[in-house]
Amino acid sequence: MGNFKEDIAKTKAFIFDVDGVMTDGGIMPIEGGMDFIRKYNAKDGYAIAYAVRRGYKVCVITGGHGNLLRSRMERLGVTKLYLNCMDKISAMQEFFAEYDVDPATTIYMGDDIPDLECMELVGIPVCPADACSEVVEASRYVSEFCGGRGAVRDIIEQTLRAQDEWAKDRTGVLGVASR
Amino acid sequence: MGNFKEDIAKTKAFIFDVDGVMTDGGIMPIEGGMDFIRKYNAKDGYAIAYAVRRGYKVCVITGGHGNLLRSRMERLGVTKLYLNCMDKISAMQEFFAEYDVDPATTIYMGDDIPDLECMELVGIPVCPADACSEVVEASRYVSEFCGGRGAVRDIIEQTLRAQDEWAKDRTGVLGVASR
Amino acid sequence: MGNFKEDIAKTKAFIFDVDGVMTDGGIMPIEGGMDFIRKYNAKDGYAIAYAVRRGYKVCVITGGHGNLLRSRMERLGVTKLYLNCMDKISAMQEFFAEYDVDPATTIYMGDDIPDLECMELVGIPVCPADACSEVVEASRYVSEFCGGRGAVRDIIEQTLRAQDEWAKDRTGVLGVASR
Amino acid sequence: MGNFKEDIAKTKAFIFDVDGVMTDGGIMPIEGGMDFIRKYNAKDGYAIAYAVRRGYKVCVITGGHGNLLRSRMERLGVTKLYLNCMDKISAMQEFFAEYDVDPATTIYMGDDIPDLECMELVGIPVCPADACSEVVEASRYVSEFCGGRGAVRDIIEQTLRAQDEWAKDRTGVLGVASR
Repeated sequence: MGNFKEDIAKTKAFIFDVDGVMTDGGIMPIEGGMDFIRKYNAKDGYAIAYAVRRGYKVCVITGGHGNLLRSRMERLGVTKLYLNCMDKISAMQEFFAEYDVDPATTIYMGDDIPDLECMELVGIPVCPADACSEVVEASRYVSEFCGGRGAVRDIIEQTLRAQDEWAKDRTGVLGVASR
Repeated sequence: MGNFKEDIAKTKAFIFDVDGVMTDGGIMPIEGGMDFIRKYNAKDGYAIAYAVRRGYKVCVITGGHGNLLRSRMERLGVTKLYLNCMDKISAMQEFFAEYDVDPATTIYMGDDIPDLECMELVGIPVCPADACSEVVEASRYVSEFCGGRGAVRDIIEQTLRAQDEWAKDRTGVLGVASR
Repeated sequence: MGNFKEDIAKTKAFIFDVDGVMTDGGIMPIEGGMDFIRKYNAKDGYAIAYAVRRGYKVCVITGGHGNLLRSRMERLGVTKLYLNCMDKISAMQEFFAEYDVDPATTIYMGDDIPDLECMELVGIPVCPADACSEVVEASRYVSEFCGGRGAVRDIIEQTLRAQDEWAKDRTGVLGVASR
Repeated sequence: MGNFKEDIAKTKAFIFDVDGVMTDGGIMPIEGGMDFIRKYNAKDGYAIAYAVRRGYKVCVITGGHGNLLRSRMERLGVTKLYLNCMDKISAMQEFFAEYDVDPATTIYMGDDIPDLECMELVGIPVCPADACSEVVEASRYVSEFCGGRGAVRDIIEQTLRAQDEWAKDRTGVLGVASR
């Protein structure tokens, strides 16, 4: 394990939790009872879609569920999506195997206690500014941004900058794909 | 009445108001006219589901109503739910009797004037940072977090920590149940 | 015109704008195209329902429209409601006449330029912390709270306190009516 | 290129991005999968509708889509609307030609990387306080307000003030049109 900046320069894969990471943790139940409205962030979305396009693997693992969540993630083009996930560890291992990803150089961003086990499995555990105290302690990097307010964007942007891969495509086309 | 930390170490039951406690007080009417969208907090939800699982009694009493509110509370597994409640005092007394709960060691978190009477009935009245002034005055503990922004999580976490009951289950399974 | 505190001690009527006063100005269009989701504040709602119950006249005048807005105001029991209002001045004058209200002791809370004319017509123009600069200038009192974050509650609470009419009914019953 | 204040005094046209400019970047997927709930700002809306009424050209170009977005913009009376826009540059050039607008005196407000190319095409690129770093760098003016929290209002208000065109119509009528 080198220093943080050296390590993210080798990262080719990201794993994200959803509630509290891609959102501020707010969940708004709507009719039908099986789905929530969640508020995602367009700048996070841009970064995810951009990273996927540049060849990075982006995995999303969540206990959350519902078609709204699924369709959002599909629109962003995430590499692998685990909804309704009862066993995040197995999901991660499947992702590592399927995409030949090295856990040692993988970034995992979580915000709460169910993320702790997952964070121990990767080389680069990180979290939003408003993660719970146990997660902050387990993280190598705490973003200055809160969940849903740019934490996802921040870690992707920093990683891709470290590899001189950020902002290489300034046309509007990608912007469309990301929203 | 001992000091606050000693008293929460004996707590086995929580009573929560909804609007302004589990939410920031925001209510968004939607079509049908009988229901509101409310924005709950995933970290609060984790703490409630976890506490119930560890054997704590969690009662929710609200003047609010609607299927969305009901299904959210059911999903979290709250022990007892009073919606549309015209008489919070009677509801509390029923809860105390039914679950053999001692008011002296019960925590009640409210945020506004209709909560004042209830707060006088328990040994440990508490409130979010943004409760109204009368409620702040009537509280033994004012969370540094606002309603819907972690006040519920804060009081549950502090209480369970005082009993060495916090963060004993780090698997993702519980995370699923809470969302 | 006396000082502000003397004047609100004589107030028996309130007039409120909706967007930016009862809300943070956020409007969320939903399907059908004729209606918005707005986020109201439960503590504001409590204060309005309470004031009406204590005999105060509460008038709401807005250029906004839609069944959601109407049903929210009806639920709070507002004395008089003008939706879709093209001529706020005439609406105010009708309200003054119908309820025998004296403009000199009426409070008007607005937040933007279309409110300026109305504010000149009452003795006690007030505004939320985040009103536009022209409205701030035209106000005798600027709440420390923003629209949708307690500005309405603040002015009602201050007024009723000045008349020793605040917090006289602490039962949960009223809480129900207000939500 | 003169100084900023001299240049906005000559502006007759505005171009706005939507996500992160007219909103805080929050997008809330709803059922159907083809549309998002977005939270617009009433004070921004007032300014746009007012500017159009005073003869300014207001163009909105976005990669976003959906009937909700379209109907909001139509209600505000925007001069020209490009939804689902894959090629923002061509859209801008069409707008310049169709309305005989001079790019050198046009204001473009964007917040993220897909806006950079567009910003180079106008004389007065500006952005909200929370734009990404590349956009901040490319801007001649950074509003003190964030996207969805008044950035649009700010730039319109400043521009119209510089031309003594602000707040010339204080009746409620316009307020109606803007909401």
